[in-house]
Amino acid sequence: MARIVQKFGGTSVADLDRIRNVAERVKREVDAGNQVATVVSAMAGTTNQLAAWCQEIGPLVDAREQDAVVASGEQITAGLLAMMLQTMGVNARSWLGWQIPLRTDGTHSKARIETIETDDMIAHLGKGQVAIVAGFQGIGPNGRITTLGRGGSDTSAVALAAALDADRCDIYTDVEGVYTTDPRIVSGATKIDRITYEEMLEMASQGAKVLQTRSVAMAMQHHVRLQVLSSFVDQPGTLVVDEDEIVEQKIVSGIAYSPDEAKITLLGVPDRPGVAASIFGPLADAAVNVDMIVQNISHEDQSTDMTFTVGKADLDRAMSVLDGLKDELGHDGVQAETNVTKVSVVGVGMRSQPGVAKTMFETLADKGINIEVISTSEIKVSVLIGGDYTELAVRALHTAYGLDAEPSD
Amino acid sequence: MARIVQKFGGTSVADLDRIRNVAERVKREVDAGNQVATVVSAMAGTTNQLAAWCQEIGPLVDAREQDAVVASGEQITAGLLAMMLQTMGVNARSWLGWQIPLRTDGTHSKARIETIETDDMIAHLGKGQVAIVAGFQGIGPNGRITTLGRGGSDTSAVALAAALDADRCDIYTDVEGVYTTDPRIVSGATKIDRITYEEMLEMASQGAKVLQTRSVAMAMQHHVRLQVLSSFVDQPGTLVVDEDEIVEQKIVSGIAYSPDEAKITLLGVPDRPGVAASIFGPLADAAVNVDMIVQNISHEDQSTDMTFTVGKADLDRAMSVLDGLKDELGHDGVQAETNVTKVSVVGVGMRSQPGVAKTMFETLADKGINIEVISTSEIKVSVLIGGDYTELAVRALHTAYGLDAEPSD
Repeated sequence: MARIVQKFGGTSVADLDRIRNVAERVKREVDAGNQVATVVSAMAGTTNQLAAWCQEIGPLVDAREQDAVVASGEQITAGLLAMMLQTMGVNARSWLGWQIPLRTDGTHSKARIETIETDDMIAHLGKGQVAIVAGFQGIGPNGRITTLGRGGSDTSAVALAAALDADRCDIYTDVEGVYTTDPRIVSGATKIDRITYEEMLEMASQGAKVLQTRSVAMAMQHHVRLQVLSSFVDQPGTLVVDEDEIVEQKIVSGIAYSPDEAKITLLGVPDRPGVAASIFGPLADAAVNVDMIVQNISHEDQSTDMTFTVGKADLDRAMSVLDGLKDELGHDGVQAETNVTKVSVVGVGMRSQPGVAKTMFETLADKGINIEVISTSEIKVSVLIGGDYTELAVRALHTAYGLDAEPSD
Repeated sequence: MARIVQKFGGTSVADLDRIRNVAERVKREVDAGNQVATVVSAMAGTTNQLAAWCQEIGPLVDAREQDAVVASGEQITAGLLAMMLQTMGVNARSWLGWQIPLRTDGTHSKARIETIETDDMIAHLGKGQVAIVAGFQGIGPNGRITTLGRGGSDTSAVALAAALDADRCDIYTDVEGVYTTDPRIVSGATKIDRITYEEMLEMASQGAKVLQTRSVAMAMQHHVRLQVLSSFVDQPGTLVVDEDEIVEQKIVSGIAYSPDEAKITLLGVPDRPGVAASIFGPLADAAVNVDMIVQNISHEDQSTDMTFTVGKADLDRAMSVLDGLKDELGHDGVQAETNVTKVSVVGVGMRSQPGVAKTMFETLADKGINIEVISTSEIKVSVLIGGDYTELAVRALHTAYGLDAEPSD
């Protein structure tokens, strides 16, 4: 007997037919003799409708009230799924955030989970009752409903799995798992059976948006075995686990890419101590996240060019900050480029295997692709390239690292 | 400064425009220097949608889960109204049943209120904050959400007014108050300024469906001054109060009628002791509510005819119970008639004024209307007449008791 936490997203519970489908999956785990806690999102579209009403009332509504309104979406799904299971003869009940209670801080609309009191739920699980948990919601220090922000139900599920000391946390979604790269670009992309938390974090933050970064980080911290799998196809998905659970490590696990970057180049920046701080300090103050940074070799006039990337959504804000620095910094000008893509090669194996970066640079050079910026971490190498080369680069790298599926007969 | 509880029904909060209209009414009470707690129903249509989903899942769903699902409707309205008030500069917050807490017994879907803990809310009201209370909902002994059944938000409002020791409980609805009779039948019907609880109970249970009987009974028990008024027209409504608050008592306050009755006559019932119990016992066991009863004078063969009324909705069930009694009772036959109406003359003044019934009988006789059954209580006289005579009888009685409005110039 295992204790399993499951999570089903909005598209998986979009109507009563899909809720019935979810109930059948829950029942299968129960019939296999497992204790099951199932976290649900709001029916697809519900949260948007509720949020739209709030926005229509005004631009700056009280986040405490907005949380009370939007949390009702998960409350509805939880009740409906519990009823659906009961009609199948499965003992089940719904749990709202305040009923567990799942306690959070008071940061409404993006609250952080503080504690989950599980004694009561564990007693019910022990009697063979399935716990249907309304995701995305908790109760704040003042007894008000809080919500956990983007991807909140993933976070609810991972946190609950940690608190319940669950054997596994299954995140059901509309894809079959984590792939070596985007299957829309590389037809030979294959589903990864096992991936480490660190790799998953890099894959997630680099654009493979299957799991919210925040829930992966939480799973890593609490050693929760995550599985990403499809709620529509009946197959094992991708297990996200500790490194020591992966027997045969590939050097490179996957190729991620993110088209959501913009490149900024400051021309003719005086090459003197403290100049970096005078650029990146004000950007940080304006909540602009700077990712890759390259400082070019000094020109003869003791000036240099500085190149870095920011999220596309932050570009306008970044440019206005840099405009304001013109007098103080004395640079010659600013260039911005949005048609760029960050491509990353990810794998824990590269820690022990030199030459991964070399293969990447050679492969791109062979295809005539110019590398504009490079950045590396222990388990990934990222390059910024022209946006038009995205598919070409991803396909070439996928092949170069031996990730292509064997052609099936 | 007064402390006022208000209640707005589903049609009054059907969309954001109407919620804005409600917010303006709330603001007016606040601007007048009053402490205000506002009870809201779900947006019209929401509860039906939620209940329909539950019914689609199965005929006998878990009432605890259904309560969790349908209670979300009031949760949404409460949050939206609180936000709307805030945009108008009014300090307001929402209160869900479990946050107050409003404690009920565990009879899900028709729970009874046990206690309302008001210390916290009173502290907030004292700081000038409006309490927006989700109606229809409470928390049961096991920490699950309960709902109060039909007219539950009226009950929430009256119970809250009692617990808060409010100066008044204003029930906003889509009519302007309680009328001397149905204005659709009598154009000269006038709005009643003040009516006693006892009269209101008779008027409500006799077909003037402005207030749920249950909430009137609760108001009477706790001496809550109720006001029924329109959320769309800006005028005082009808005050429902203790008898001693009514200075000038009319003998008759209003004429009520109910077409929802059916008449049953048992022919040739043996006229012996215990026969009434052997008829009405089994009917009560089958949850058939019997209203008016008449036993005719004995025939020479020691048998009698027994006539009584039941709700039209209960007629089939009543007839099948009576069928089953045929052998035991030995009556000659059963007749049922659905085209009947109960017309009632209601007024606390009739306790001290004889002759009210006489006026009623004479008025009906003058119009050639046959009275089939009569029943009386301390403050009303009811007669059963042929359904075709309903309008004629109501108009004649309205005139006979001097209730017609003066023709306006």
